[in-house]
Amino acid sequence: MDEQSPAIETDVLVIGAGPAGLFQAFQLGLLGLRVEVIDALPEAGGQCTALYADKPIYDIPGIPVCTGRELTERLLAQARPFIEGRLHLGWVIDTLGGTAEAGFSLSAVSALDAQTKGPSFQARSVVVATGAGAFLPRSLNLAGLIGLRQVHHHLSDGACATWAGQDLLLAGGGDEALMALEQLLALPTAQAPRRITLLHRRAQFQAEPGRIAQAEQWIAEGRVHLAVGLPTAVHSEEGRITALDIMGADSQTTTLTCPHLLIQLGLSPKLGPLADWGLALARKQVQVDPASFASSVAGVHAVGDAISYPGKQRLILCGFHEATLAAHAISRHLQADHPSHLLYTTTSPVLHRRLGVAQG
Amino acid sequence: MDEQSPAIETDVLVIGAGPAGLFQAFQLGLLGLRVEVIDALPEAGGQCTALYADKPIYDIPGIPVCTGRELTERLLAQARPFIEGRLHLGWVIDTLGGTAEAGFSLSAVSALDAQTKGPSFQARSVVVATGAGAFLPRSLNLAGLIGLRQVHHHLSDGACATWAGQDLLLAGGGDEALMALEQLLALPTAQAPRRITLLHRRAQFQAEPGRIAQAEQWIAEGRVHLAVGLPTAVHSEEGRITALDIMGADSQTTTLTCPHLLIQLGLSPKLGPLADWGLALARKQVQVDPASFASSVAGVHAVGDAISYPGKQRLILCGFHEATLAAHAISRHLQADHPSHLLYTTTSPVLHRRLGVAQG
Repeated sequence: MDEQSPAIETDVLVIGAGPAGLFQAFQLGLLGLRVEVIDALPEAGGQCTALYADKPIYDIPGIPVCTGRELTERLLAQARPFIEGRLHLGWVIDTLGGTAEAGFSLSAVSALDAQTKGPSFQARSVVVATGAGAFLPRSLNLAGLIGLRQVHHHLSDGACATWAGQDLLLAGGGDEALMALEQLLALPTAQAPRRITLLHRRAQFQAEPGRIAQAEQWIAEGRVHLAVGLPTAVHSEEGRITALDIMGADSQTTTLTCPHLLIQLGLSPKLGPLADWGLALARKQVQVDPASFASSVAGVHAVGDAISYPGKQRLILCGFHEATLAAHAISRHLQADHPSHLLYTTTSPVLHRRLGVAQG
Repeated sequence: MDEQSPAIETDVLVIGAGPAGLFQAFQLGLLGLRVEVIDALPEAGGQCTALYADKPIYDIPGIPVCTGRELTERLLAQARPFIEGRLHLGWVIDTLGGTAEAGFSLSAVSALDAQTKGPSFQARSVVVATGAGAFLPRSLNLAGLIGLRQVHHHLSDGACATWAGQDLLLAGGGDEALMALEQLLALPTAQAPRRITLLHRRAQFQAEPGRIAQAEQWIAEGRVHLAVGLPTAVHSEEGRITALDIMGADSQTTTLTCPHLLIQLGLSPKLGPLADWGLALARKQVQVDPASFASSVAGVHAVGDAISYPGKQRLILCGFHEATLAAHAISRHLQADHPSHLLYTTTSPVLHRRLGVAQG
């Protein structure tokens, strides 16, 4: 993104597109506030999508059972009138300036490469809904790796297009890597790599037994090659990865040709720049007033698993309540002309108009 | 119910089967506590069923739209493992005794007739989830009416059996009365009254236009008779209603034969005996600690629209959060052996067993 792009002006910037952040956007929109949402992950849903997309959740009120992905889809559908075109994925906030009086200026960089500038925002209020922290794909700890071309952390269509017909090194030995392996082998010929080498620090995998058995069979059949060892250095030419140095169990280093690298080591929760923002924290949680979910910095609210207050339970349904009270507190502050009584979605024509539904 | 029935022993008695009360039972059950639920209305759902059963709600998180009845059905399905056979409908609590240390003794009477004794309970803890108050069917304000036989406030199968083939007076001129009229005219011959007289204080009805037009047509056709006037006195014989005195617009009083009376005047929110329990109230709301939703009486918690705390919004989704924190506070008090860390429904085999689901 061009560094010169003008800042996006909004009433409220919500940082985090997990369940609490998505419902935060819905409640703010319902109150007539403009909202933008940013998240480090390439998909909305936070932990729901990243950690338990296909696992069942039983304690969302009124939904006896749903998967993390289904819950995310439901929350996206509900918030759609307010977030369409306003969801910025794959970016992390790296600077926060300004005040509640003057407005806040925030700018983002790529979640994968802090050198790549992202969108910037001018917001009257900010809500921190980052959960346990921004979830970032875990990378290999190698100097000079970040910023190289043909290094990928997501199995996206774009990535598939670049390695089609060429050799690919897949780093990882857990469920994420073995799931990626399955997807790679299922690609149509036009998108498939010529040869896939799985790189893991030892010959044993840590994943679901069925997935391990399948991977071992592919290796035995020669459909997947296995390289065992620890990457110690990266080679590149003109900003493009070419090879990795690998140290084996015998402490010998060999150089492995690597025209394309896909890293699938899972996700890492990271508190990120939040820790530097001057928000009062207690055991890495943002301290808030449970009447308004205001943080110690005026104009900055916080909801969901990022926060702490007496009685707090780290449950999705509590995040919904927190987001609702935060939205009302922000509205009281930003909208002096707002009706002081609560409007109900069942009966209010104003809310029906905002939701884009026929009057009930 | 026999006055001598033994008290039902339970860990927690939840008073109110609206959305907050139903989810309260779910969360308590999930934490391994035994629960009983009591409500004044003949159906679960509270306001959702009584006031907007067929109207859309748009702000339940993850449910872009549902009616009050649908939400109730979803919450009943979710709580089923914990409330099956433990839902007591049509009763109001009229006495509360005991303490958190010794246990609480509560007894109920019929919501329609305080002379009819209902179930009694021995509970270690109580949750008040009565919403704006117990909703009671509005009655006619006539001395001597309550307790008479052949006076009904619900169009139940039992009531239909008593008036079959006989004359029925239907009191009311709103949606409830005209809907009852429709149901009465649709009854099979074996259950239908011989003659239906609609009694309203004036000749104009206050209801949906379509419903009014239909009622007026039935009156024009002679299928329904209309009596206009204000009931001023009731006549009875051996505890059975026989007639009503009616004052017309001309201030003349006439006596109307009334072997069966069905009163359909809608519902009235009533704080009920809650007001006498010694719970600290502020503007008729129960004051609670928002970390535990404990009231001023040890062992008695309160959630939902009955309560007040800083920032409180009277929204269903806030009731879900309140019930969850109340359940955890009650569990901490009653279950010293309970794990101190939060278990998640997605991953905990203990919770899967309690929910009766296969392990995910």
